[in-house]
Amino acid sequence: MATKTKKKTVKATKTVKTVKTKVTPAKVSKKRKEQHIYEFGKKTDGDAKMKALLGGKGANLAEMSRIKLPVPPGFTITTEVCNFFTTSNGKMPTGFAAELKEAIKNVEKQQDKKFGDQSNPLLFSVRSGARDSMPGMMDTILNLGLNDQTVEALAKKTKNPRFAYDCYRRFIQMYGDVVMGVQPRHENEHEPFDEIFQGIKKKAHITSDSDLSPELLQETIKAYKNLIKARTKTTFPQDVHEQLQGAIAAVFKSWNNSRAFVYRQKYGIPHEWGTAVNVQAMVFGNMGEESATGVAFTRDPANGEKVFYGEYLLNAQGEDVVAGVRTPKPIAQLEQEMPHAYHELDAIRKTLEKHFKDMQDFEFTIESKKLYMLQTRNGKRTGLAAVRIAVEMVNERLIDQKAAILRIPADSISSLLVPVFDVHGRKKAQLIGHGLPAGPGAASGQVVFSATMAEQLEQKGTKVILCRVETSPEDLRGMIASEGILTSRGGVSSHAALVARQMGKVCVCGAHDLVIDYEKRTLTSGHTVLHEGDNISIDGTTGEVFSGFVETAPSEVNQVLLGKLKADKSYTYQLFDKIMQWADKYRKMSVRTNADTPEQSKDAIALGAEGIGLCRTEHMFFEADRINIMREMILASTEEERRIALKKLLPMQRKDFEGIFKAMEGRPVTIRLLDPPLHEFLPHEDSSRRTIAEQLGVSSELVSERIKALHEQNPMLGHRGCRLGISYPEITEMQARAIFEAAVNVSKGKNAVKVNVEVMVPLTAYAGEFKNQAAIVQSIAKEVLDKAGVKIDYLIGTMIELPRAALRADEIAKTAEFFSFGTNDLTQTTLGMSRDDSGSFLPLYKELDIIPQNPFATIDQLGVGQLVEIAVERGRKSRKGIKLGICGEHGGDPESVKFFYRAGLDYVSCSPPRVPVARLAAAQAALEGKEKVKTK
Amino acid sequence: MATKTKKKTVKATKTVKTVKTKVTPAKVSKKRKEQHIYEFGKKTDGDAKMKALLGGKGANLAEMSRIKLPVPPGFTITTEVCNFFTTSNGKMPTGFAAELKEAIKNVEKQQDKKFGDQSNPLLFSVRSGARDSMPGMMDTILNLGLNDQTVEALAKKTKNPRFAYDCYRRFIQMYGDVVMGVQPRHENEHEPFDEIFQGIKKKAHITSDSDLSPELLQETIKAYKNLIKARTKTTFPQDVHEQLQGAIAAVFKSWNNSRAFVYRQKYGIPHEWGTAVNVQAMVFGNMGEESATGVAFTRDPANGEKVFYGEYLLNAQGEDVVAGVRTPKPIAQLEQEMPHAYHELDAIRKTLEKHFKDMQDFEFTIESKKLYMLQTRNGKRTGLAAVRIAVEMVNERLIDQKAAILRIPADSISSLLVPVFDVHGRKKAQLIGHGLPAGPGAASGQVVFSATMAEQLEQKGTKVILCRVETSPEDLRGMIASEGILTSRGGVSSHAALVARQMGKVCVCGAHDLVIDYEKRTLTSGHTVLHEGDNISIDGTTGEVFSGFVETAPSEVNQVLLGKLKADKSYTYQLFDKIMQWADKYRKMSVRTNADTPEQSKDAIALGAEGIGLCRTEHMFFEADRINIMREMILASTEEERRIALKKLLPMQRKDFEGIFKAMEGRPVTIRLLDPPLHEFLPHEDSSRRTIAEQLGVSSELVSERIKALHEQNPMLGHRGCRLGISYPEITEMQARAIFEAAVNVSKGKNAVKVNVEVMVPLTAYAGEFKNQAAIVQSIAKEVLDKAGVKIDYLIGTMIELPRAALRADEIAKTAEFFSFGTNDLTQTTLGMSRDDSGSFLPLYKELDIIPQNPFATIDQLGVGQLVEIAVERGRKSRKGIKLGICGEHGGDPESVKFFYRAGLDYVSCSPPRVPVARLAAAQAALEGKEKVKTK
Repeated sequence: MATKTKKKTVKATKTVKTVKTKVTPAKVSKKRKEQHIYEFGKKTDGDAKMKALLGGKGANLAEMSRIKLPVPPGFTITTEVCNFFTTSNGKMPTGFAAELKEAIKNVEKQQDKKFGDQSNPLLFSVRSGARDSMPGMMDTILNLGLNDQTVEALAKKTKNPRFAYDCYRRFIQMYGDVVMGVQPRHENEHEPFDEIFQGIKKKAHITSDSDLSPELLQETIKAYKNLIKARTKTTFPQDVHEQLQGAIAAVFKSWNNSRAFVYRQKYGIPHEWGTAVNVQAMVFGNMGEESATGVAFTRDPANGEKVFYGEYLLNAQGEDVVAGVRTPKPIAQLEQEMPHAYHELDAIRKTLEKHFKDMQDFEFTIESKKLYMLQTRNGKRTGLAAVRIAVEMVNERLIDQKAAILRIPADSISSLLVPVFDVHGRKKAQLIGHGLPAGPGAASGQVVFSATMAEQLEQKGTKVILCRVETSPEDLRGMIASEGILTSRGGVSSHAALVARQMGKVCVCGAHDLVIDYEKRTLTSGHTVLHEGDNISIDGTTGEVFSGFVETAPSEVNQVLLGKLKADKSYTYQLFDKIMQWADKYRKMSVRTNADTPEQSKDAIALGAEGIGLCRTEHMFFEADRINIMREMILASTEEERRIALKKLLPMQRKDFEGIFKAMEGRPVTIRLLDPPLHEFLPHEDSSRRTIAEQLGVSSELVSERIKALHEQNPMLGHRGCRLGISYPEITEMQARAIFEAAVNVSKGKNAVKVNVEVMVPLTAYAGEFKNQAAIVQSIAKEVLDKAGVKIDYLIGTMIELPRAALRADEIAKTAEFFSFGTNDLTQTTLGMSRDDSGSFLPLYKELDIIPQNPFATIDQLGVGQLVEIAVERGRKSRKGIKLGICGEHGGDPESVKFFYRAGLDYVSCSPPRVPVARLAAAQAALEGKEKVKTK
Repeated sequence: MATKTKKKTVKATKTVKTVKTKVTPAKVSKKRKEQHIYEFGKKTDGDAKMKALLGGKGANLAEMSRIKLPVPPGFTITTEVCNFFTTSNGKMPTGFAAELKEAIKNVEKQQDKKFGDQSNPLLFSVRSGARDSMPGMMDTILNLGLNDQTVEALAKKTKNPRFAYDCYRRFIQMYGDVVMGVQPRHENEHEPFDEIFQGIKKKAHITSDSDLSPELLQETIKAYKNLIKARTKTTFPQDVHEQLQGAIAAVFKSWNNSRAFVYRQKYGIPHEWGTAVNVQAMVFGNMGEESATGVAFTRDPANGEKVFYGEYLLNAQGEDVVAGVRTPKPIAQLEQEMPHAYHELDAIRKTLEKHFKDMQDFEFTIESKKLYMLQTRNGKRTGLAAVRIAVEMVNERLIDQKAAILRIPADSISSLLVPVFDVHGRKKAQLIGHGLPAGPGAASGQVVFSATMAEQLEQKGTKVILCRVETSPEDLRGMIASEGILTSRGGVSSHAALVARQMGKVCVCGAHDLVIDYEKRTLTSGHTVLHEGDNISIDGTTGEVFSGFVETAPSEVNQVLLGKLKADKSYTYQLFDKIMQWADKYRKMSVRTNADTPEQSKDAIALGAEGIGLCRTEHMFFEADRINIMREMILASTEEERRIALKKLLPMQRKDFEGIFKAMEGRPVTIRLLDPPLHEFLPHEDSSRRTIAEQLGVSSELVSERIKALHEQNPMLGHRGCRLGISYPEITEMQARAIFEAAVNVSKGKNAVKVNVEVMVPLTAYAGEFKNQAAIVQSIAKEVLDKAGVKIDYLIGTMIELPRAALRADEIAKTAEFFSFGTNDLTQTTLGMSRDDSGSFLPLYKELDIIPQNPFATIDQLGVGQLVEIAVERGRKSRKGIKLGICGEHGGDPESVKFFYRAGLDYVSCSPPRVPVARLAAAQAALEGKEKVKTK
């Protein structure tokens, strides 16, 4: 007895569990009085706002019905039914069957046909439709309702047996595949239905599907049925209701097929959403030469122009357009071929835009001259098109400025700024590799493998592409001389990528399928071998690498900004200008730039920068006249020798700062003290070492020894940043002197400008480090300013780029007057991940869905972001008005910019070409508000 | 009028401010009824507990007076007066003068002398005395009260003019220096008083001070006074009260001299403590051959033996003992020279210990046979002495076990375990350099510069010291073959240091003054050049490097633990055992060990380890028979090839684990999956590469290419840890299989042992990484265990060694069953500081007081510690019973161990030789409690 009782308890528990699982969807249904099916057509239950319940397709079908567009009647089975189905092991909710029956009856009435009728049969299409579009991820079944009887009726009624049998053939194939699971059994097997079909065509010596006789189609149908019988041990269902139930279940099941599952993981779509099922009366674009099917956009999705854009196929079903067997005709031709349908379609196009207030991408079918709308949704578009459509829709009073700002992916503004490949040239070029799109734009030129060669050729006026395994600061001058940079190793934050973006150079990096051999001086991709001097073309917007020279076209916006083109001559510029004006009106966060030279500063101001957030003093030391003095300083063995070299650097650095202060005309300029480890300034090759030794008049052994002594296991975590200035205070002194002497010089005389300088200490981990460096800067500043009798506004602050600095922000803020988050290094240290070395595993991480995106491109909000938030809170707690900004690469990434706004920063700083992107993203951030924190 | 009013307001504000500054000390004084001076002697106000108010010296003088020891009477001016003096610009508090007068009067009464009296003058010593001893940091003045009159009285009364003038000379010199500031004016100037004194002696052809005639001393006094006049434009004060006030003020001021300031910063003594001033009746050890002065200890501070230990000088003042001009005699000799004083002193020695309940370090003076006590304090002692004294004092019932545990610096236990240099040999050896004490103990042998040479010589029975610029995993076998390791680069956590501690090898690292030249095969220090084969000796406890062979003596404790010596034959072992028993009784945290082999595991168990907290699987791959298979695996270009190599590694790794499981006999064993980047397993030299290529039958180019491809900029932040297991899941599979197959094998059969294994995923940053690896391990575990039909207890957890992991601990703990903090890497990433590269700036940081201690030796509680605390809190929030431990190097550092206890960890794990240290530190932590968090 005891055992029995125990068993019962177990069972009871189980039952409770099952009930529990059922509870959630059942409850939700109850709220809406358990409506499982929403009709559209004459009577329409849903509307465009109900995407969560009806899916995107279903909601828009309902909306189109409401505004009286010619939508074939039908009904949508809700996503809640899908969830019920999934969690209750394939069951349908109570009442569903009755609703389905009623819905079918209503479609029958409207179409004056009957589902399964042997003389006038109604056919259905069954399509999935999730809240967000998941293109190609789930299944669709057309021509449902055909069987051995109804196909005859269709043949008779349409007087077109070929059409009828073709529909039946297609239906059996789709149904057999999707519902009955007749699919290839291993990788090398062909699609089994297609194999039969091709066999029959081959036997009959037929190549085009449309040449198949009704007899051959009947033979095909028979063979298909046999295949299903052989594979599934069941027969193809003749009962149309059974067909429909099977199709609905199959769509629901397809929500959890592995393709769809992976897709959702990748795009962060919750698995709980479920899909709706749209059951709609079939209309036929394949009923003859007066029928057609097509896809169209309300404006040109490539350039945004307000023209009717699309394509169609005569006598075809939707799947044929996608399959690409026949080449569709441009929509304009429809005006000639079916003027009535065309004009109706053009009118609908305008209605759609007025109603949906966005560019629409829609599907239509013309059945014997009669037009039907099968789908509409917001159309995907290029960056340029996004800007143009948004601006013009504001002009047309379709949307307001805020909506326009929010609608443009901030990144797309950059596509108005970069040179692009000539479309025709590109089509003809041979693609030889693919890397990361690291510096947008298009560039072509001769392959060179060294910075020296790049400079030499550039001086002769030759366009070159610098091709390196990876770049180092030594390559800097070569990079400047090149049209673009291509590396076979490194990620989007590698040296090559960073510098390229900084300089606005075109760059493709980490193109792993290319092998660069410095010795043989070749670049190899499979069987293609390029030698130094051969032409190559790279697209830094897409990451593509082509052999040969592809012509480029420069961006008009840049031409206007640089005064080479009048604004009124460039419509693109006007669009750009309009969007930027609106963005500046709504944004609350400042946008600064990372600039190291007066030229970069001027470019950035032209693009709207309001200050310099990061001026890297070390880049100045790589210039021809300085690198040797810098090396002299590094090779010095005493402080005295070091001071002699520094004395020579002082006037040069002072001149640099004068130039930048003048260019910035009183805007804030954040100057970072020397940051990189000293060995970065020393040459890597033996020959260069010998040259250096000769130039400096020291032994070549000394140079080698010093280089060896400076070698580090992990330079990123080594003797750099403020650690240098603490070890060699004379370096900090020289830099401070250069800054304040420059400030004094430019703030006097006829062309005096105001100076607003912020001195920034790099790589602080301990408050004591900052205090040490700040004291040196303050004392030099006082000395220089007192001597000159000049007053200059200045702040002394620090980078927050190490986890410890973020955690100790309260202590550091006691003396630091501003923080600038160095999110590159903060990401490297928080994740323990070198940006240069992570290329070997980050792509896999993305694929495995371990990371949502590259943390060096978009800030890791959940990890690194926590440290930013901690530092903001603790910094402000210690020093209420502390100025907070960010100067890492993330400052130009829209999603990151929005995070920084929510985190409460005062400004972001990014490379000059990203300034417009940051301005737009900052405006979007302000409009979206601080509450909405995206966690996945 | 208006102006006047304004002025008044300003004045008023000023007055208020001054009052404000005065408030704090005045208030404190009020509480104690404004007592500024505490007398000792017949009437004693203070006691030993009042160190904060009276300083250490003053409190103990009071205490000694209370227990009727022969202390010359005197009084202590409180630290509060010092603080008042400092904050009120050199003023003394109200009522102070009256109290001083009264105190002087009371001393006069007891001594039956009068301060400044022209016939029977009372002299004073004036000494500083802070709460904590700050040896040599502040100033002392003796013989105060002498002037041109009193000196004559003293001469007359003692009938010893030479003595009197010598006292006066000494007093003027001290007073001139300390109070009147007559000091060298630049670096190259000699001490000016001394220069005069030497001049007079030279002129008179005298070498010994005691040979100076009263006349020459008078001449010296005159010359001293002239010097003071010339330098200060004032005369040496003849008024004894002025002398006393000057001396008191000088001691107060010396609290803030730069030496004392820096010392306090260094040892974390608050500047607010202030110093007390002790004014005491002078007694004279220099009054003739029946006078003496000395320093003694109640027990031997070197070995802790309960014997009377000390030294003395006849006819001398205290300063002479310190100056080292004359060599003091051992205290035993006093029994012959002054038996009465000796026996009195020996009795006092016993009284002191009984009273203070600790070994005392005391000063005494014998004035004409009469003994006086001038100071007592707890004596400093060696590690061995600390242990012996503590144990014996418990046996003597002077203290209890808890006090004994708390009194022994945990580190000192390790001095019972390491071999040491023979004392005599060491004294004779030539010191040629100094590095970081990285692996305690002493070792001597021939200089070798390569691992290969080390192995070759070791096989011949030659003792060698491996001398490298720095070591890498390739050197491992050479390190094993060596007696000790010496590197010229790298810090206490460099590879050499880590491995040395792990293996218990003697190691000195980062000996920057040594130049190692691999080509010339020389080790150079200044003019000393050692060649390969020359003898060298290193002391890893002190960091010293000697040329030549210094004999060593092995530790008895180790001999007993390894069964080579009986416990009852070694008193040292018995001391060790006693302390360990007591520690285990009180500690609450477990202590595990980091061990990679059965041998290490056994050693660690002998030392008290309760489990393995870190078993590094990679160390196994460096062994002779495996490294090539490992390289085969790394050089494989397909997963298939990799799997073939892994299959060969499987039985080897399985055997390793079997050995460890057996050795651990059911104790928990945490096995970490492969961690280091693969390039660490590949050879660095061209010749080795060719050999590998031949062995593996591949082209030497392939090897070079693969090595190049695996090269990383920052390997520490590169493709390592779980990133490897995610990229090559087959590696994780093999390791999991080896673990569980080993577990199955040892848990069956005759000699079956229980297995308690914890599989640990390294370098997790994202929860997804952990899930990925855990899934692989779980699936293999299930497969292996199901197949064998065996049940094994196992956990799967992760290292927390990246800031992101700590911040996301809540998410990670959803699947991870334990955390083990990898504080080495967590420190590197949190501080952005490579342990291998930080040697170039960390010593300077310590010197500049930017860091309180080396963060790789003692955990950075304020930075890294915060992340540990965050992870503990968030980890437990997600998984209540999560097991928490730490396996970084910090697990063997006492201060860090205490932090981990307060942070709430369940165990610490350290290298085998550190296990006893950790046990003791854990006991101390438990006794100290969780509240007391040390922040500086």
